[in-house]
Amino acid sequence: MNQDYIIPNEWSIIEEGFNSYKVKSSESLFSIGNGAMGQRANFEENYSGETFQGSYIGGVYYPDKTRVGWWKNGYPEYFAKVLNAPNWIGINVLINGEKLDLNTCKEVAKFKRELNMQEGWLSRSFEAVLPNGIKIKVATKRFLSLELDEIGAISYNITPLNSDAKITYTPYIDAGITNEDTNWDDQFWDVLKVSQNKQQAYIEARTMKTHFYTCTFMESRLFIDNKEVEATCNSEQTSNLISCSYQQEVKENQTYTIHKFGGYVVDRNHNKEDLVAAAKVALDKAVSFGFDVLLEKQKESWAQIWSMSDITIEGDVKAQQGIRFNIFQLNQTYLGTDASLNIGPKGFTGEKYGGSTYWDTEAYCIPFYMATKDQSVARTLLEYRYNHLDKAIENAEKLGFTNGAALYPMVTMNGEECHNEWEITFEEIHRNGAIAFAIYNYYRFTEDYSYIPEKGLEVLIAIARFWQQRATFSSDKNKFMILGVTGPNEYENNINNNFYTNYIAKWCINYALENIEIVKTDHNSDYNRIKEKVNFSDEELAKWKSVADGMYFPYSEKHNVYLQQDGFLDKELITVADLDKSQRPINQKWSWDRILRSPYIKQADTLQGFYMFEDDFSTEELERHFDFYEPFTVHESSLSPCVHSIQAAKLDRMEQAYTFYLRTSRLDLDDYNHEVEEGLHITSMAGTWMSIVEGFGGMRVQKNTLSFSPKIPKEWNSYSFKVNFRHQVITVNVSQKGTDFTLEGTEAVHILVNGEQVTVSPSK
Amino acid sequence: MNQDYIIPNEWSIIEEGFNSYKVKSSESLFSIGNGAMGQRANFEENYSGETFQGSYIGGVYYPDKTRVGWWKNGYPEYFAKVLNAPNWIGINVLINGEKLDLNTCKEVAKFKRELNMQEGWLSRSFEAVLPNGIKIKVATKRFLSLELDEIGAISYNITPLNSDAKITYTPYIDAGITNEDTNWDDQFWDVLKVSQNKQQAYIEARTMKTHFYTCTFMESRLFIDNKEVEATCNSEQTSNLISCSYQQEVKENQTYTIHKFGGYVVDRNHNKEDLVAAAKVALDKAVSFGFDVLLEKQKESWAQIWSMSDITIEGDVKAQQGIRFNIFQLNQTYLGTDASLNIGPKGFTGEKYGGSTYWDTEAYCIPFYMATKDQSVARTLLEYRYNHLDKAIENAEKLGFTNGAALYPMVTMNGEECHNEWEITFEEIHRNGAIAFAIYNYYRFTEDYSYIPEKGLEVLIAIARFWQQRATFSSDKNKFMILGVTGPNEYENNINNNFYTNYIAKWCINYALENIEIVKTDHNSDYNRIKEKVNFSDEELAKWKSVADGMYFPYSEKHNVYLQQDGFLDKELITVADLDKSQRPINQKWSWDRILRSPYIKQADTLQGFYMFEDDFSTEELERHFDFYEPFTVHESSLSPCVHSIQAAKLDRMEQAYTFYLRTSRLDLDDYNHEVEEGLHITSMAGTWMSIVEGFGGMRVQKNTLSFSPKIPKEWNSYSFKVNFRHQVITVNVSQKGTDFTLEGTEAVHILVNGEQVTVSPSK
Repeated sequence: MNQDYIIPNEWSIIEEGFNSYKVKSSESLFSIGNGAMGQRANFEENYSGETFQGSYIGGVYYPDKTRVGWWKNGYPEYFAKVLNAPNWIGINVLINGEKLDLNTCKEVAKFKRELNMQEGWLSRSFEAVLPNGIKIKVATKRFLSLELDEIGAISYNITPLNSDAKITYTPYIDAGITNEDTNWDDQFWDVLKVSQNKQQAYIEARTMKTHFYTCTFMESRLFIDNKEVEATCNSEQTSNLISCSYQQEVKENQTYTIHKFGGYVVDRNHNKEDLVAAAKVALDKAVSFGFDVLLEKQKESWAQIWSMSDITIEGDVKAQQGIRFNIFQLNQTYLGTDASLNIGPKGFTGEKYGGSTYWDTEAYCIPFYMATKDQSVARTLLEYRYNHLDKAIENAEKLGFTNGAALYPMVTMNGEECHNEWEITFEEIHRNGAIAFAIYNYYRFTEDYSYIPEKGLEVLIAIARFWQQRATFSSDKNKFMILGVTGPNEYENNINNNFYTNYIAKWCINYALENIEIVKTDHNSDYNRIKEKVNFSDEELAKWKSVADGMYFPYSEKHNVYLQQDGFLDKELITVADLDKSQRPINQKWSWDRILRSPYIKQADTLQGFYMFEDDFSTEELERHFDFYEPFTVHESSLSPCVHSIQAAKLDRMEQAYTFYLRTSRLDLDDYNHEVEEGLHITSMAGTWMSIVEGFGGMRVQKNTLSFSPKIPKEWNSYSFKVNFRHQVITVNVSQKGTDFTLEGTEAVHILVNGEQVTVSPSK
Repeated sequence: MNQDYIIPNEWSIIEEGFNSYKVKSSESLFSIGNGAMGQRANFEENYSGETFQGSYIGGVYYPDKTRVGWWKNGYPEYFAKVLNAPNWIGINVLINGEKLDLNTCKEVAKFKRELNMQEGWLSRSFEAVLPNGIKIKVATKRFLSLELDEIGAISYNITPLNSDAKITYTPYIDAGITNEDTNWDDQFWDVLKVSQNKQQAYIEARTMKTHFYTCTFMESRLFIDNKEVEATCNSEQTSNLISCSYQQEVKENQTYTIHKFGGYVVDRNHNKEDLVAAAKVALDKAVSFGFDVLLEKQKESWAQIWSMSDITIEGDVKAQQGIRFNIFQLNQTYLGTDASLNIGPKGFTGEKYGGSTYWDTEAYCIPFYMATKDQSVARTLLEYRYNHLDKAIENAEKLGFTNGAALYPMVTMNGEECHNEWEITFEEIHRNGAIAFAIYNYYRFTEDYSYIPEKGLEVLIAIARFWQQRATFSSDKNKFMILGVTGPNEYENNINNNFYTNYIAKWCINYALENIEIVKTDHNSDYNRIKEKVNFSDEELAKWKSVADGMYFPYSEKHNVYLQQDGFLDKELITVADLDKSQRPINQKWSWDRILRSPYIKQADTLQGFYMFEDDFSTEELERHFDFYEPFTVHESSLSPCVHSIQAAKLDRMEQAYTFYLRTSRLDLDDYNHEVEEGLHITSMAGTWMSIVEGFGGMRVQKNTLSFSPKIPKEWNSYSFKVNFRHQVITVNVSQKGTDFTLEGTEAVHILVNGEQVTVSPSK
């Protein structure tokens, strides 16, 4: 744990006391989003201290030119960059002509932030003494509406405490913004038009190159002691900013309030010519509701989300806060309503890892969305990849593959590769496996086979082709090998025969072959359509099979474990426990070559295979591999602790499972990885959900039946979660005394609990 | 061979006929230099076609900010970039008000370029019909003076052929230049002052960041039919350019000539406040000599260089032209007079490979300079590394090494690392070995042991420390290993146990230990000084020894060869002969991962070890390894054919040796690597020299004696070369009939010829 200032609370993230060095960290932690847009918790008023300003619109990105020290064939010419969008939250504040700026106040007291996850809003309050001696109380509340997902709303309230005061609110929208993540001081936005219509202001701007058209907008209402006042807007305008000043004499202890509505409309949802009109519609609707009604709707929307996805934990507030924070952020990032969006590893909370889609989506996020939403959401995520299949085939062609072989990009926005380190872009090819696995996982959980003949099989075939072509036949060992890869453990590059990669490659081929047979038999017209489209022969399928059957797996007879890769045992096998603490995290302390030749593992790699293909290995095998690899694992990937928590739970090592659970669920809250300032780790939050549901709850689909093997950490009195399994919503309540199940529905469901058949009947 | 337009000639590089698509290629091939500066063969007059403008000053570079997709610890924050310097050669030409531009002429006839290597000048002549119908004859000659190394001189002559004409020469100097090698459109120069003093013009400019102060200057003289004319300069000046126009009515068939003198003075040689005064001194001296006298001096200077370094080949003009081109370019690049300079891989002919010093200097260039110059030149090159030792230690510290271990940079200008690909910067560590080997090589050849106690031993110790710390003990194999390296064959990255690297590491440690003992015994005060300075203990030396003694070398019993690295045999071992030609060069056709998992070898790797440590292996071993590895070698490094030529000659495979010789000696002339436009491959030219002297001539130092085992390709009647061995200059003449030796000196020398003792007496 690297920080510990978030106040434990079951439903809220709370910070008390103002510390300028925590501003960037809190800007990440208190981020808000509504699936369509999101923003860091920047202050509305001017702040001259260190800050990382960020407001992001889903699906609006910039293809930055790849710039590397030395070009390598196959690098993408452009890569998508997450773009900071025009600022609509800004409200400059003057008190008797003096600017309110928390960085310059004589005194700041009673500072409190709260991110209320139950109701979906962010608030801030404080008392401040300005350099001119005026003391004021400030209270703000802000949210991004789920009901009107182009709209955000702010209520900003000031009460002078020691004298009357002349208060000026200057709400503005500003397209003169920069990106934190740019080495090159580039501009990314062309501002097209700044305009105004009565109380409403608009900035139309277009991203360079991608030409996404957006309109950022605002409208404000003013109140004294909750009574609306007729306010005269004193408007100012530059080429990329428009503001509107409202000045008011306010008596001591009166409260002067501004309600500011703002947000974005984009040409993904409207004609680009109609954006101002669309902005007007959105604003008119928001203003007609008013702040308070919109806030009520926000609470209702979040209540609906929580009703399905909440996990309760009794007796451990930090654990409860952690899991809710994870579930809340996942829902802020992606709601499954727009098939062109995906789940970026930083969501709407930062710019790192430009691009929105990693294998995280398939390996970590789909299980969460599948179990806590309608299954159409998971299917939408699968379709996202189906829609990118042609680009994945092009991507593979760039690397010399032929005949419709597909290599999905490591990072993408629109199907094109966005990353340009050769050891990742060209070699971290196991990502293809997770994409195939998600299809299997979806069918296993939802029983919706229709996706496979309709779309999935084409993806499976293209991926199988890739693996067959990517394998090398070693005549020396008379086996097929996969040379030159980076596994899930990115602390090894260009290695040969990564166990996980070889295993999933073999699995992909077999799964494609199996489904070709099923579709041929059960969905013959689809089969014929696909066969005509992608044109495979029995001879080709036989080639695939020979690769799958002849796949090599490095194994140590001495340790009785599969080796993570060829040569793993040649390393100096000093466990993490014996590594000087001052050397950690090694990714911040060591040069890359030193990391590479060390035995240290960034995240589950061999164990990731044991997680995904659990049924293929005995518990004894899992235990042996866990004991061999976990001691070398530094868990410097956010995706590491969750898998280890699940496996520790399976191995009945509840203390270890609990420690990993805390680490994954509070990774950002407690800043384990020393980098929360850059944004949150969104995708690993789905792993946190898994560590409860699959780890402690032991949820699996076994023999086509939902099964549980519930365990509970000794620190908890009880916990409960819900899953939407094949349209049946089952609630699992686990306490120290035992487990019970309730069912929302009409028909009884048969499940397996610790291997025993149990029937759950609908609760009345 | 990729081009074949250079006319074979023993002493000159000649191009006939004007082809705009060859301009950039010829700009490289006809480059001139004098060790202190150099330039591409750009036209003096304006040229609107495709061109790559370049003029470079030794030791003047720019530290560009490292920009990578993903930062890795240990990357250098800056890397040196070779900087295009202000242009001093420019002479705009107007004929009756019409600009002379070879790209727009109605007709260009009798175009000829000649780079006269014997005398060190570049000429160009042509007849052109301008759009306005005037036909002119143009003849130019240009050289960079060896006598006055801050000075270049141009004679530019125009004869109107079909009418009288008003000719305007506008010589100028221009600091408004850009770099070809910049992705970022950066400016690299601050122009400080543009000024004039009578006929002389100056631009003082300073490189950004490094703050190298330079003054670019010019002065001109005008002639009609060789008679000087009083000319009135019509001067124009902007913030970064100054020009001087001379207008003259010229009769049909009269020749109007301008002699332009120009060049650079730099603050490495003068006080930065005195640069204009220094420029004045240089110009005054040049002008007082005049063009013709300076040219005479140029011929004398080059005659002196050739008297020692020429290699003659009878009966094969292309081979003769090739070797002279190589020797000429090496001498244009580096003359050994300035200890702060080194031999950049592109010399002064291009910008690629920013930074001037690679392991090429030690592995390839030192033997050439050692044998063809006074031995002080080679010692200066060794001292260059000694002077950078502290920075090499810092560099190693950045990567986690301690206790004075040194890792010399892969690429450098001033001792700091200049490269930022992790697989090279952090892993191509064998470079350290070549630096130690050069010390051994220098002593072996010159018998000057004094360098080792004075300076070399500190370098050897720091390098030995590096290797000891860099080795990993594999308890699985009970051996020391070197994991995660890139060998000389850069088509393998992050491999384990590269034979060459492991071999040279072991050798370095043993050589350091051996010299510690010698210095202790024979140079005890140096020993005490060094021991006090670098503080090694017997215990530390014992650790070194255990690493050297326990070093692991991958070996195949089946093939009876050392393996280039662990796992080499798992590749698909398809020889280059069986590789589709359309796939080559693979570095332009294949993505990096495909190259890496292929068996293809960029340049000698295991065989580089057999070259450097020849005495450790039998001829049968060499043959076996040559037969195993050469068939997989694509020779896509300029440094490859020379080593293979030497080894083929040793194995009596004279046809193959001859083919490799042509490839190395005419690599640029015939553009084997499809990239001559970017500049020449300077450092591999020393390898060409080796392929004659060490390859065909079989020169070695064996048992402390100079030895030869001369062979001759069947295509040649004879060849001869000279070597300066321990201050004795021996000429070796090899013909189809036999070999004879002559000696310049006073005392007879004993040499070995094909293993037999021979005494060479001084020739009268």
